[in-house]
Amino acid sequence: MRIDILTLFPEMFTGVLSSSIVGKASDKGLVQFRVRNFREYAVNKHGQVDDYPYGGGAGMVLRPEPIFAAVENLAVDSEKPPRVLLMCPQGERYTQQKAEELAAEEHLVIICGHYEGYDERIREHLITDEISIGDFVLTGGELPAMTVIDSVIRLLPGALGNENSAVSDSFSTGLLEHPHYTRPAEFRGWGVPDVLLSGHHANIEAWRKKQSVKRTMERRPELLKGIERDPAWKKIVEAVERDASEKP
Amino acid sequence: MRIDILTLFPEMFTGVLSSSIVGKASDKGLVQFRVRNFREYAVNKHGQVDDYPYGGGAGMVLRPEPIFAAVENLAVDSEKPPRVLLMCPQGERYTQQKAEELAAEEHLVIICGHYEGYDERIREHLITDEISIGDFVLTGGELPAMTVIDSVIRLLPGALGNENSAVSDSFSTGLLEHPHYTRPAEFRGWGVPDVLLSGHHANIEAWRKKQSVKRTMERRPELLKGIERDPAWKKIVEAVERDASEKP
Repeated sequence: MRIDILTLFPEMFTGVLSSSIVGKASDKGLVQFRVRNFREYAVNKHGQVDDYPYGGGAGMVLRPEPIFAAVENLAVDSEKPPRVLLMCPQGERYTQQKAEELAAEEHLVIICGHYEGYDERIREHLITDEISIGDFVLTGGELPAMTVIDSVIRLLPGALGNENSAVSDSFSTGLLEHPHYTRPAEFRGWGVPDVLLSGHHANIEAWRKKQSVKRTMERRPELLKGIERDPAWKKIVEAVERDASEKP
Repeated sequence: MRIDILTLFPEMFTGVLSSSIVGKASDKGLVQFRVRNFREYAVNKHGQVDDYPYGGGAGMVLRPEPIFAAVENLAVDSEKPPRVLLMCPQGERYTQQKAEELAAEEHLVIICGHYEGYDERIREHLITDEISIGDFVLTGGELPAMTVIDSVIRLLPGALGNENSAVSDSFSTGLLEHPHYTRPAEFRGWGVPDVLLSGHHANIEAWRKKQSVKRTMERRPELLKGIERDPAWKKIVEAVERDASEKP
């Protein structure tokens, strides 16, 4: 997979792209990164990439020429047109499903704006996907871009070692995870639930499923809808509801 | 403001904490960062911070001792106890409102796990806030931590220059932004809406409001609820609805 990043702050990416799973995937050749400052494609020798908005108003707007030139230059060797992602608050909310979709692509180009707006012609004629990671205001698209990259790369075959791949499995039920405990068995007077020390695997499994349902019910009840069609899970949900109603 | 970060990958933070608005805020003394590898507080000389889960299963679990020791060490000089944030998929969904709440604090400690689970006693007895940035799987809490940091720091008085502060204003209506256009007036045959070149300020303002409503209606209709109580906005919403129903 090839991932190209267009940004005015290439130095922001160094640590993230070279560390941990993402860094290892890059070392193994599973992904090739190119981080480009689109100021290289500026409209004049002063490095200008933005301009005042037509119609007036505060803030600057990114001009179309540098962004089009940069994307076209990066796509010149690609067999098929790349997916061109714009990170922006107006975009589609990013989800795991989108991560899976992007992980099947051969070439992504990610455009990161930075406080400026974008000329609308970039949106209309160049971008294939507008993505937002949430309803909060950031100084630029760089952190959302890194977030997308991290979530996509860990899905590439071979990116996660065996010791880590299990983690993704824990999301396969669609519920929040049950609590985890490890050594020491007692820490500052706080113990570990007896069942986890019992060695009784069926009881441990039952306890974990119940805890997972309980936590999901408390924090993200909408996620329960996905499992209630399954009779075995439905029983667990009912048991947790009974427990909750019996408490004073 | 003081922000402390506990991570096994301190090198991931270097670029982000020294660039752009966050880097400038740090240079101006608006925020002091300490990035600590909690392996410094390992339970033995091998640097061990995690262990097998009680009750069995794949994956490792972060032990309580190193995390408690690290947080207590970082809080030793704080006048009041810091907010201790755990970045995790089970957490409360991060919002702009939460960013504003955190920006009013004096001391944040942010704990970033990395594929491992957390011993539940960390959650129960040390953490004040569990935060998730969205329903997607990442390799660790580092990018969510940087996302929180970026969103909080840009809210600190003096962090944004005048040229940027206008951007935040554009969110004050609660709607998505209208399209922006800048030079050139024609690019590859694609023009700029005539109204923006007209110099007629009232028409430009009306066009922008309508476009803002239109985009919000198409992409995030739930955000319109907030403005429909205002009669002036309600009129614009109705006009956009009329336009949409008149199109073939």
